[in-house]
Amino acid sequence: MPLIESEEAIIGRLGELFRNSFAPRLEVGIGDDAAVISGIDNKLVATVDMAVEGIHFHKDWSTPFQIGAKLTTASLADVFAMGGHPKYLLVAAAISDSNNSEVITELAKGIRSVADNFNVSVIGGDLSKSEKMALSITALGELDADPIRRSGAKVGDLVYLSSLPGLSAAGMAILNRGLDRPRYVVEAHLNPKLVKPDNLIKVASAMCDVSDGLTIDAGHIAKDSKVSINFVSEQLIGATDFKDLQELATELNEDVFDWILNGGEDHFFIATVDPTKASDELGIQAGLVVSGNGQIMLDNKEIKKSGYQHF
Amino acid sequence: MPLIESEEAIIGRLGELFRNSFAPRLEVGIGDDAAVISGIDNKLVATVDMAVEGIHFHKDWSTPFQIGAKLTTASLADVFAMGGHPKYLLVAAAISDSNNSEVITELAKGIRSVADNFNVSVIGGDLSKSEKMALSITALGELDADPIRRSGAKVGDLVYLSSLPGLSAAGMAILNRGLDRPRYVVEAHLNPKLVKPDNLIKVASAMCDVSDGLTIDAGHIAKDSKVSINFVSEQLIGATDFKDLQELATELNEDVFDWILNGGEDHFFIATVDPTKASDELGIQAGLVVSGNGQIMLDNKEIKKSGYQHF
Repeated sequence: MPLIESEEAIIGRLGELFRNSFAPRLEVGIGDDAAVISGIDNKLVATVDMAVEGIHFHKDWSTPFQIGAKLTTASLADVFAMGGHPKYLLVAAAISDSNNSEVITELAKGIRSVADNFNVSVIGGDLSKSEKMALSITALGELDADPIRRSGAKVGDLVYLSSLPGLSAAGMAILNRGLDRPRYVVEAHLNPKLVKPDNLIKVASAMCDVSDGLTIDAGHIAKDSKVSINFVSEQLIGATDFKDLQELATELNEDVFDWILNGGEDHFFIATVDPTKASDELGIQAGLVVSGNGQIMLDNKEIKKSGYQHF
Repeated sequence: MPLIESEEAIIGRLGELFRNSFAPRLEVGIGDDAAVISGIDNKLVATVDMAVEGIHFHKDWSTPFQIGAKLTTASLADVFAMGGHPKYLLVAAAISDSNNSEVITELAKGIRSVADNFNVSVIGGDLSKSEKMALSITALGELDADPIRRSGAKVGDLVYLSSLPGLSAAGMAILNRGLDRPRYVVEAHLNPKLVKPDNLIKVASAMCDVSDGLTIDAGHIAKDSKVSINFVSEQLIGATDFKDLQELATELNEDVFDWILNGGEDHFFIATVDPTKASDELGIQAGLVVSGNGQIMLDNKEIKKSGYQHF
């Protein structure tokens, strides 16, 4: 296989790399002007995420496999956050033409490493040259119930986290110091593991994925629901993974609560739940919805939203 | 309005910029994790296109308005080329943070300048920072008939062009010389006008849009249909716009047939049509489908595919 392939050869090979059996209703797939699905039975959920080199990832840190996997995770998490079932992906990639064959193969494998877990198929895309890599992934899904909006939280609802955020921020702190261990922490940043929040989807009054940082993402729910959210440090400290995260923070001389509250990209979920539906199976009960105007508090003191701001 | 806006302010404003009445079935739009459409009655058509600064456009030549309009054109053309009706767009943009407010507004206006013509709504997106601008547009549409594939051409079919390609290439040749007139030619490159090929959609056995160049795009049809295509120079010369294009080529000392056969980005359409369905209303009858293995010929002599190759 040559290191630099022609576009025609690449697209033919992508058809192979993405061939799978998850899309029985795919009428036209990769290789025509657009993909065609023979029908959508339910509501259609649609979202797009983009990642560009130097901003969202660094080639020194991340392999093409990890870059593909992580953006797929972000995109599928958005479909889960509405309560939907992702089905199809469209992938647009602009990559440098040196060694394009290997980069494309690894990107495709990374995308499949996540998509295959959820029976999601890549049905089309766009490929071009670029000095700096840019990748966009569109996820399409189905939804057979009311969408779980950010605006549905009610005063008195409990706030749940599907897992304790902060490990991705810890991984980035390690990479920022030029280190690469502990490996599982670095991996949490480079290739976060996506778990579908099945139990939360059944009961959430509002939900979003934790991509920009817990304070910012909780802030989206609070603002759109015209409420405030109060996190309780004692409940966060009680979470299973807190101790490990705290030890890492101490070692690196960082603030564990800064990681939890402001670190992004874990792609866990925050949801609000009516107290009558409380259950240990929903994850970490981390706080309460209170009356207010979009404030996020920790132990009743407002905290500044300092997670990842794109501008 | 500040030159540099916060993400929250921008997303709020984008909700306003893209607010419109074309999407009665939009249940959740811009501002949640994903968009939700309450139902799709027909087949779903989906396609994505990406453009990056320095490869697909140059900021010296193109305004953000033109960049947004042109990529929207490319994306809608792909839906038309399957015979579909575009309905919804998802826009991912990575832009520099200097002057982001104006750039985003102009991008949005450019996108709407094309989308509004076809009652297409922007329903979601992703916005981030980048040194070099990158833009991806996903178009979703509906299709109430069989998709028009690239593989449907039959020996004996007539080859039609919705318009004579080449004006975009002429515009680029002018810009490459540091010139900016005639303005309508430069505009054809910077902001090509999209016309829905209604008549061709009704009768085409195969169709694609002319984005990479006529020879390459005709080659897609020929290869997928396991036929060859023979263009007839006399028929191209007979097209209404040929004389103007030839005069431009002579002035710039370029080959008019190179523009027609290898220039890309006109976003016109090439289609094959059973001869019983021939009609002057289909556009320019430019050649014939003949037996072969994917060759593209002009006056029975094979021509090299030298349009825009992404690698």
